[in-house]
Amino acid sequence: MSLYILSLLKTKMYRLILKNFSMHIVLDAAETELVVSRLQYKTVKKNTVLLDAGAIAKNIYFVKKGCLRIFNSDQEGLEHNILFCPENWWAVDIASFSGQTPAFYSIAALEDTEVLYFSYPTLEQLYIEIPKLERFFRILTQNGFYLYQLRVTSNLSKSAEERYALFQKQYPQLELRIAQKQIASYLGITPVFLSMIRKRKT
Amino acid sequence: MSLYILSLLKTKMYRLILKNFSMHIVLDAAETELVVSRLQYKTVKKNTVLLDAGAIAKNIYFVKKGCLRIFNSDQEGLEHNILFCPENWWAVDIASFSGQTPAFYSIAALEDTEVLYFSYPTLEQLYIEIPKLERFFRILTQNGFYLYQLRVTSNLSKSAEERYALFQKQYPQLELRIAQKQIASYLGITPVFLSMIRKRKT
Repeated sequence: MSLYILSLLKTKMYRLILKNFSMHIVLDAAETELVVSRLQYKTVKKNTVLLDAGAIAKNIYFVKKGCLRIFNSDQEGLEHNILFCPENWWAVDIASFSGQTPAFYSIAALEDTEVLYFSYPTLEQLYIEIPKLERFFRILTQNGFYLYQLRVTSNLSKSAEERYALFQKQYPQLELRIAQKQIASYLGITPVFLSMIRKRKT
Repeated sequence: MSLYILSLLKTKMYRLILKNFSMHIVLDAAETELVVSRLQYKTVKKNTVLLDAGAIAKNIYFVKKGCLRIFNSDQEGLEHNILFCPENWWAVDIASFSGQTPAFYSIAALEDTEVLYFSYPTLEQLYIEIPKLERFFRILTQNGFYLYQLRVTSNLSKSAEERYALFQKQYPQLELRIAQKQIASYLGITPVFLSMIRKRKT
């Protein structure tokens, strides 16, 4: 394969994640090369579990294509979706990953999904080699905090209709791709009630 | 006042916060000088409100002496304590501070309290001048995430007795300093029930 084709493929492969980095930091050519060389890639089939609650989160995932969900299971075994992570989102149990402690959340694929990811030691090493990555992940963590806080508080203080409107705003078009029961589990309502809300809105 | 006395006072003034920074980063003399020169200091009386829910968090506070609490009020006006911040803790509504958006939480003093703090623009400027501060606040944010997640999930999955034991472990000796009703509001139980738990344990 010619270098030109290789370079084109690489551009396509890393375009989205490099654009994601560029939201908060500017990487020069050498830094970009280094970051890209450390990224791992895999495809996972729908329903594949990437992290099991109780295990230690080894990786931080960037969704290149498809959709992941972060969820926990209560004592009755019911699953509660905390976050959907479609293209351009990062997925991690940040407390588990950053402290290398057992995860509270699980992560699984809602569709056939392509991810790019860093392992924990790889990212710790990269922080040393490219300190400005600290900035990126500081901002990412802060934004994650914001989202998580919003989730916790909106479940306490907003009606199901309001939460559904927020979901639609946060994830445009996503409801066309994933199962109704997954959305209901995110909203904290039954699929039947979600169906009623949808009918009322149309 | 002699330079020697001034320097001694300064050492005492900033000893705790500099030790806190040194948990995660190494500041050289010039960086230490710069950080210290940007820190602001104030004392607040018991019950003073440092941040009102709905306002934008302007500052990130480090508790030098005393104790702050972070709390929210529900629609019935009941207050729920999210976190206590005694000496050596940082207090902020991180989502509000980092996004400069209206705060969900309030922050108030449980005792006469001394704080050191950075304003938002000051800290943003310091990130540029001393990039390794990004590391410190990345780790702080991650730890905050962990604590917050623990709070949310332990309220769902642990008994009041277990939550009380966690509180005692996380905040040794604090229960001798603050009102029973504040601890009850942290545990999500009534003061009467807390009193029963305490009696059972002794």
